[in-house]
Amino acid sequence: SIDGQRLWSSLMAMAEIGPTANGGSCRLALSEEDAAGRRLLIEWCKAIGCTLRVDRVGNLFIRRLGKRDDLDPVATGSHLDTQPKGGRFDGILGVLAGLEVFRTLDDHGIITERPLELVVWTNEEGSRFAPAMVASGTYAGAFSVESTLARRDRDGITLGEALAATGFAGEMEVGEPRLVGFLELHIEQGPVLEENREAVGVVTGVQGMRWFDVTLRGQSSHAGPTPMRYRRDALAAAARLIDRLQGHALADTSGDTKVTVGCLDIDSPSRNVVPGEVRLTLDLRHVEESELDALETHFERELAAAGETFDIETRSERVWASPVVEFDVGCIDAVERAARAQGVPYRRMMSGAGHDAVYVSRVAPTAMIFIPCRDGISHNEAEYASPEHCALGAQVLFDAVLERANT
Amino acid sequence: SIDGQRLWSSLMAMAEIGPTANGGSCRLALSEEDAAGRRLLIEWCKAIGCTLRVDRVGNLFIRRLGKRDDLDPVATGSHLDTQPKGGRFDGILGVLAGLEVFRTLDDHGIITERPLELVVWTNEEGSRFAPAMVASGTYAGAFSVESTLARRDRDGITLGEALAATGFAGEMEVGEPRLVGFLELHIEQGPVLEENREAVGVVTGVQGMRWFDVTLRGQSSHAGPTPMRYRRDALAAAARLIDRLQGHALADTSGDTKVTVGCLDIDSPSRNVVPGEVRLTLDLRHVEESELDALETHFERELAAAGETFDIETRSERVWASPVVEFDVGCIDAVERAARAQGVPYRRMMSGAGHDAVYVSRVAPTAMIFIPCRDGISHNEAEYASPEHCALGAQVLFDAVLERANT
Ligand SMILES: NC(=O)NCCC(=O)O
Ligand SMILES: NC(=O)NCCC(=O)O
Repeated sequence: SIDGQRLWSSLMAMAEIGPTANGGSCRLALSEEDAAGRRLLIEWCKAIGCTLRVDRVGNLFIRRLGKRDDLDPVATGSHLDTQPKGGRFDGILGVLAGLEVFRTLDDHGIITERPLELVVWTNEEGSRFAPAMVASGTYAGAFSVESTLARRDRDGITLGEALAATGFAGEMEVGEPRLVGFLELHIEQGPVLEENREAVGVVTGVQGMRWFDVTLRGQSSHAGPTPMRYRRDALAAAARLIDRLQGHALADTSGDTKVTVGCLDIDSPSRNVVPGEVRLTLDLRHVEESELDALETHFERELAAAGETFDIETRSERVWASPVVEFDVGCIDAVERAARAQGVPYRRMMSGAGHDAVYVSRVAPTAMIFIPCRDGISHNEAEYASPEHCALGAQVLFDAVLERANT
Repeated sequence: SIDGQRLWSSLMAMAEIGPTANGGSCRLALSEEDAAGRRLLIEWCKAIGCTLRVDRVGNLFIRRLGKRDDLDPVATGSHLDTQPKGGRFDGILGVLAGLEVFRTLDDHGIITERPLELVVWTNEEGSRFAPAMVASGTYAGAFSVESTLARRDRDGITLGEALAATGFAGEMEVGEPRLVGFLELHIEQGPVLEENREAVGVVTGVQGMRWFDVTLRGQSSHAGPTPMRYRRDALAAAARLIDRLQGHALADTSGDTKVTVGCLDIDSPSRNVVPGEVRLTLDLRHVEESELDALETHFERELAAAGETFDIETRSERVWASPVVEFDVGCIDAVERAARAQGVPYRRMMSGAGHDAVYVSRVAPTAMIFIPCRDGISHNEAEYASPEHCALGAQVLFDAVLERANT
C-alpha cells in the first residue's frame, strides 16, 4: 500500500543536495548541505500537516497526530547526514520511508491510536564529530548535552557552534519526547542478504564497537643520511601495527573480528623526512563483548610491540565504546510478522553497523529492518538499493509501525 | 682567520625568520618567509659592496669582484629554504659561511684573482616543489626552465607563480654565469662524523636517490558490516608495502640501503570507512647505482605483491632519479688540504643527502665540506651544529675557495 515510486522520487530529490562526482552525496553533519537536506524534509512534512520540534542537540521530531495524543508516540526515522563520499541510502532511506509511511496513512485517511514521530538524529555518521550516533546517544542519556555540544570537528568547530550556524539549535529538552517504540529501516551496508538472496533482514541487535585515537611519536630525521637502524620512524611502526591487526582479523575464520584504520596523519609530512609523529584512528568490532575485550587487549599488545621494535612512544585513547546490543523481543517479532506478511525470504540477523537504534533501544523498545545493499558496498558513492527493495522495506516498516501504534 | 662569532650571529639572525615552536625554522621554498630570508641576505651582501643577479628560476648570484673579472668565477653557496619543521643549519650554513668568507676577505683587504659568486639555489629541499635541487638542476641543464617553472606544490601553485609572488623571478638566463669551481659547506645531517669524533668531512660524492609517487586504489566500504575477506583496503596494502620495505632495508647489514615513506594520504578519510584510495611517496637511496636498480625492482615487486594480497590496483611513477655522483678530484683534494691544515681529524666520505653540488658538479668542478651534526639529526627542529664546528667549516671553505680563486 505504500507508494514505491513516490519514495524513490524523494530519495533521488534528497540526493541532489550535496551531490558528489560519482553519484553519491556529501552532507557532513551540520554542514550547509546537511542543513539544506533537513529543510527539504521539513518542507515536505509541513505540507502534510506535521509539526516540528527540535531538541538542544538538533534532533528533529516531526509529529503526526493520533487519536490519543495524551499517549506516548511510536517513532521511526534515522539520519540525513552522510560520509564525505557517502551514498544515497545510508540513513536517508529510514527518514524518507518514515515520510512515506505518513503520506500513505494520509492517502488512506488513517489516524493511528498513538501519535507518530518521524525522527532525524543529528550526526549519526561520526565522520565530522566523533563518536557516531552522538545525538541519539544524548537523547538516551549516554552522553551529557554539554559534552555533546562541546564535541569538535577536525577544524576545531564545536557541534554547538555548527548547530547555531545552521539554525538547528532547538529548545526542546534532550530526552523528550518519551517514545513507546522505535523502528528504524536501513540498508544493510554489508553483503549478507544479497549473498543469501533474502529481501529483508529482521535485525535482532548490533555488534559492539570501540574507537581509539592512537599517537605514535618517534623522531623526524633526514631520509638520506640517517641510517635505517638509527631511525625512529613513526610511520614504520604504524604500518607494522596495521599489518599485524589485519593479519589477526583475517585469521579469525568466523569473520566476526573487524579492524579498520580509517584515518592516518603524518605530522608535517615531507618526502625526504622520516616521519616523526603519526596519529591514526582505529575501529574495532565484534558481535561478542568478551571477544571485543580480547581484541582490545590484542591491539594494545601489538601497539606496544610495534613501538618497541621501532623505538616509538605510543599512546592510545579509547574515545568510544558501544557495547553489543540486543533489541526488544516484541519489536523484533512485529518486524518479523510484517516481513513474513510480504511473502519474501528474510533472515534474523545482527547489524555490523552502528545505528541510532542502538542508543534509542536503551530507553524505548526498539528493532530494525534491513534491505539488501548492492555488492555489500556502503560508505561509498556507489552504494545502491533497488527501488523494489526500498519499497519493500518501507512496506514492512509501515506494517510494523501501524501494529505498534494501534496497541 | 674567519670570525666564528660573526658567522654564528648571522645564523641566529636568519633563524629568526620563520621560527618554529621548538627552535627550528620554517621557510618553505618561495614562501613569504623564504623571501624574507633572501632579502636579509641581500641586504648584508649589498652592505659589503656585492652585486646581485637573479636568474629565471630565482637562483641568486651575488658577486664579489676579483682582479680579473674577465675570468669565470669560483662559487660557493647552498640554499636558504627549509623543511616544514626544519633546522637552522641545513643549507643556511653554506650560504652564510659564504658571506663570512666575503666579509673575511674584506677584513683583510684581499682581492682574489678570479671573481667570487655566492649562490643561493631555489627550492633545494624538494618539500614544497618536487624534486629537490630543482633549480641547481635547471642551472646544470638537467631540467628545462619551462618544466621547472611549471612544477606545482600541493595547493597547485606553480614554482613560476611563487617566484612572481615573492619578487624573485629574475631575468638572467639559467646556466649563467659559468663557474670554474663550486664548493659547498653543509652540515652532515647524519651521525658518521660525530660517531667517529671527526670534525670535517671531505665529501667525495653523493649517493643515488629515486623518488616515486605511489597510488593504491581499492574500494571504500563500511568499517562495520564489511567482512574482512571482502575488503579492498588500500591502507592495509600500503601498510604491508611499508612494513616489507622496512624489513628489506633493515636486513642490509652494510646499512647502505635506505627506504623512506615520508607522505601518506588517504582519500576522504573517515574513522568508519575502509580506505578506498591511498597515495604515498617513496624515497630510495643507495651509494651504488646497480644496487639502487635492484632496490627499485624489489620495491615494484613488493608493491605488486601487496596489491595482489589486498585486491588493490597499484601504480607507481618515478618522479625523480638522481644518479650516484663522484665529485671532482681537484676540488676534493683542495678541500682535503684545507682540512688537513686545520690539524683536526677528518674523513673522506659520501653524502647521504642530496645537495645542489650534485647538479652543479655536472657543469663545474665541485666538492663539498661537511661538519658534524648533533646526534645525526636533521630535517628536524632540533638540528644543531656547534659554533666551533661552524667556524671550522667556514675556515676550511675560506682556504679552499681562496686556493681555487687564485689559480
Ligand atoms: N549506519 C552507519 O553507517 N552508521 C555509522 C556508525 C558506524 O560506524 O557503524
Ligand atoms: N640537504 C638536504 O637536506 N637536501 C634535500 C634533498 C634530499 O632529500 O637529500
